[in-house]
Amino acid sequence: MRLGCWFGGCDEIRLMNQPISSSKSTNVTWQQGQVSRREKQHLNGHRSVVIWFTGLSGAGKSTLAYAVEKKLHQLQCRSFVLDGDNVRHGLCGDLGFSEADRQENIRRVGEMAKLFAQAGVITLTAFISPYYADRDRVRALLAPGDFVEVYCRCDLEVCEGRDVKGMYRKARMGEIRDFTGVSAPYEAPEHAELVIETGKLPLDECVNQVVQYLQNHGVMAGS
Amino acid sequence: MRLGCWFGGCDEIRLMNQPISSSKSTNVTWQQGQVSRREKQHLNGHRSVVIWFTGLSGAGKSTLAYAVEKKLHQLQCRSFVLDGDNVRHGLCGDLGFSEADRQENIRRVGEMAKLFAQAGVITLTAFISPYYADRDRVRALLAPGDFVEVYCRCDLEVCEGRDVKGMYRKARMGEIRDFTGVSAPYEAPEHAELVIETGKLPLDECVNQVVQYLQNHGVMAGS
Repeated sequence: MRLGCWFGGCDEIRLMNQPISSSKSTNVTWQQGQVSRREKQHLNGHRSVVIWFTGLSGAGKSTLAYAVEKKLHQLQCRSFVLDGDNVRHGLCGDLGFSEADRQENIRRVGEMAKLFAQAGVITLTAFISPYYADRDRVRALLAPGDFVEVYCRCDLEVCEGRDVKGMYRKARMGEIRDFTGVSAPYEAPEHAELVIETGKLPLDECVNQVVQYLQNHGVMAGS
Repeated sequence: MRLGCWFGGCDEIRLMNQPISSSKSTNVTWQQGQVSRREKQHLNGHRSVVIWFTGLSGAGKSTLAYAVEKKLHQLQCRSFVLDGDNVRHGLCGDLGFSEADRQENIRRVGEMAKLFAQAGVITLTAFISPYYADRDRVRALLAPGDFVEVYCRCDLEVCEGRDVKGMYRKARMGEIRDFTGVSAPYEAPEHAELVIETGKLPLDECVNQVVQYLQNHGVMAGS
């Protein structure tokens, strides 16, 4: 039994007159689960990490993330993709695209990815996430080695040439504001764990590079 | 390859002049992953559901959730507990305890639980979640059978008698405002999938009732 007694939950409680904190949620203590992350990883047969794909719109982040997920599944690994679409429909459905809202979006995704990793799941996220600061805040949430930043490098011209959904065209015409690479900056990672040339290499090769990295870093056994 | 082309991500993009929607995140389309929930469940050897524990502070929600997680782990099932403490430290660290913030807290937990279930994980949540409306909103996010509401029934006198952390005493003294059961209502579930007498039964028996329910409803094979 946890804490020597079988009751002991502490949630949703607020004390008045408590010290001001940077977090509004004070007076809560971390509850250690009975099953550790290590035990969950052992059951799965692999380590869990957060693989953070970043890059321009059209660079292939989501497609690469889903393709890696498929490969991991074939290797009997538990994985899950968080991307702009499934998150924007739900958890972050209250957020728009102002700078503050984009920052909050990435913060929530980072916190959620951390919990998925604690659950033993290899967590793949696919967001433009154009700012160093936002990405580094997520990195700081996780232990060293648990955050794998993957820069999907693809020239703007290539992304714009693909322009599957006509977004770049609309951005150039001024119909979309603050469009990364056109009217808003993209801060390319300088110390990413992996740089993948998604503008030049075929998808299979990109997938292999990610999987190879995971095998080389002990996330799962080599094939 | 997804959608017949290997690029195709659409995230964090806002069109101007688009129709007003109840969600601020418009212009995003759901990306179907390459590995279905069904395939993830098959790999795990069990179905995934959200088990939503609700009840008064001190009723034993978190303790029961963690004990069920332990039992599920022994049965080789993938499970994870979301509770007030690990969520309040991270994802919902920006929220306080106003009625609106509590509602938003439950909304985010519901959305996150949905994603965990999509990942094939049996997801256990432990929140007082005192209002019908909030719980039913989470239920509505999920397919029938995927939301298992578990009412941890425990008389207020028992919860208050336990008062492990002295919260009830402080609530009675007026040091804590809007404390469920004392100065804020608790709307007991009327159609919970399970009612567990956490005020009367030993923990092991409560755990067995939850696990038995899961086995009887095909979440995992019976033992």
